[in-house]
Parts: sequence; C-alpha cells; structure tokens
Amino acid sequence: MPKKVDHQERRALIAAALMRVAAARGLEAVSLRHVAAEAGVSAGMVQHYFATKDEMMAFAMAVVRGRSQTRVTESIARLGAAPTPPRLLIRTIITALLPLDEQSSDNARVALAFLAYTAVRPAAGLREDTTELLSFIADLLPSPDAGTAAGGLLALMEGLGLYLVSGKYTAEQALAVLDAHLDKLFP
Amino acid sequence: MPKKVDHQERRALIAAALMRVAAARGLEAVSLRHVAAEAGVSAGMVQHYFATKDEMMAFAMAVVRGRSQTRVTESIARLGAAPTPPRLLIRTIITALLPLDEQSSDNARVALAFLAYTAVRPAAGLREDTTELLSFIADLLPSPDAGTAAGGLLALMEGLGLYLVSGKYTAEQALAVLDAHLDKLFP
Repeated sequence: MPKKVDHQERRALIAAALMRVAAARGLEAVSLRHVAAEAGVSAGMVQHYFATKDEMMAFAMAVVRGRSQTRVTESIARLGAAPTPPRLLIRTIITALLPLDEQSSDNARVALAFLAYTAVRPAAGLREDTTELLSFIADLLPSPDAGTAAGGLLALMEGLGLYLVSGKYTAEQALAVLDAHLDKLFP
Repeated sequence: MPKKVDHQERRALIAAALMRVAAARGLEAVSLRHVAAEAGVSAGMVQHYFATKDEMMAFAMAVVRGRSQTRVTESIARLGAAPTPPRLLIRTIITALLPLDEQSSDNARVALAFLAYTAVRPAAGLREDTTELLSFIADLLPSPDAGTAAGGLLALMEGLGLYLVSGKYTAEQALAVLDAHLDKLFP
C-alpha cells in the first residue's frame, strides 16, 4: 500500500516555517522560495498548499489569531472558578493579547506585517474582525457609552502592542499605561 | 561649463518615488529596482543616493515625519492667536497626526510599513523617537500622573491610526473614541 501523505501535517509544517520566516525576517521575506527553504520542501510543494501570497498571509494571520485565542483562554482559566471582577477579567484578556513575552512578540510581529500588507490591499478581503472581542469587552465596562470605551481600550491595546514590538516600551511601562487607563474606566 | 547636477533635487525626486511605491504597493515593493522605475532613473542612480535599504527606509520615515510635523504646525496655526485650551490643543495635534484623509493615510501606510520593517530589525537603529511629543502632551494634561496618561493617549492614537488605515474605523468613529478618551482625561 502506498504511503498516504498527511496533508494536514504537511500544511502545518509549511505554516510553521512561514511563521518563523515572517517573525524573524519580516513580511518582505515571506516568499514561496523562502518558506520552502525554511520548511525544507520544494517551492512547488508550498505552492500546492498556498496558491497565492494572499492565501499564505491569511493562513499566517489565522495561526496568530488561533494562538492569541489560546493564550486568552488559558489566562482566564488560570483565574480559577470564582467569579472574576470585570476589571480583572479585562486586564487578564488584554495582557494575554499584548506582546509581553517572546512567543507573543513573534505573533505581534506577524500581525504587524499582516496589517502593513493588508493596508495597501483593501480589496484582498483579509481584514481582521475584532467585533466579537469588542462587544465582549463592552459588556464588562460600566461606562454609559461602553461601546466607544471598549473601542478606545482596544485601540490603546493596539498602540501598546506597537510600542512593545518596536521596543519603545518595556512590559512594565505598557502595563502602567494600561492600568492607568483601566483606572479611568473603573473609577 | 558642465551642467551641475542638483543633488538635493534628484534626491527629492527619488524620495517622492519611494513614497509613492511604499504607499501604493507596500513595503515589500520598495526595492531599488521599483523605486528606480517609478522615478524614471537607473537603479544605479538610486543606489548612489541610498546605499542600503535601511537608508532608503530611514529616509522615507524622515519624509513622513516632516510631513506630520508640517500638518501639526499648520493645524495649530489655524487655531488663531488667542490662547488655546489644553484639551483643544491636544485634540488638534492628535487629529493632525491621525490618518483621517488621503495624504495622511499615505503617510500612515508608510509609517506602518516602516514599523513592520524595524520590528524585525531592532539593531538597525531606525527606531522612531516620540519623546518630545510625549512630554509636550504630558505638560498639557491635568492628571497627577501626566506622563503615563500622555503615553496612554499616544498609544490610543497609534491604535486608532491602525484602525483607520486598515479600514476598521471611519474618521467619525475614530474621533468619537478620541473624544471619549479626552473626556476621561479632562473631567
């Protein structure tokens, strides 16, 4: 019986290579050729799984999103079974999403590259959707206009992410800014 | 007498081409070859002015920064001669820096590409410095911990910039979030 190729596994192998190239060398290095070299497969093989660069980018972003969701879920689980005050819950989610350690910095660099990539391709349909997170946060906020406040909190988070990834802020500085902002939202 | 080459003019010509390529097609398109084609000069000529890609990127960012400063200065000038309340002055500066129109969106796309580029090259020494803006804003804020509050406001601005450039927010939505944030800082 001929050996059956495990497509899922091969796709995951190529995806991991793609993430390493994107995190280490930036978006412009993410070519079929580079990813193939990093994965140790042929360029044709990579092309078999990702026909276009858009597909490769969308897949990378899906990986980042999946990792982020896992981080959030795990952080919330660590809070334990007792009911969590809204402010602590929000802080837990946001610190899980901020690039405060090595792995999340890799994620953030890929997300940043993805953003820069999609910013000049509005038609590519690669836009990220954060509506769900926004309404989840809004439900936890006491403000009369919680939707706008949640939008502000997420924008602040994105900006802090940029400052962390670019090395402008240390984790400590970013958390101080986040806490000061939460102080305003939970007076 | 041989015609003297106007280096400053030629450099500006190449810089403009660089900005058009970066804004329209993203960072990965910014190669010597593409910039040369856009400027209508030889690749060797571009290389004469920008020996490395780092130099080209740093120059593009300097152009963006110069444009942003001009926008801020002009916006403040439009406020007139009467003393401006701190909140209005801050709002004026931040809206001048946000990518709310076509020209500033081009700037923001280049800045984003620059960020993505530097995020994977921490050693390139290309990091942007916003210390001056930060302390200017901090001096205008009433908060007891004005430095942290100013950091939060700038992070929020960066995040709103991302949302605007990626098409997630309209100008109206971004301004609503900014105003809600200013309401918290100026109770």
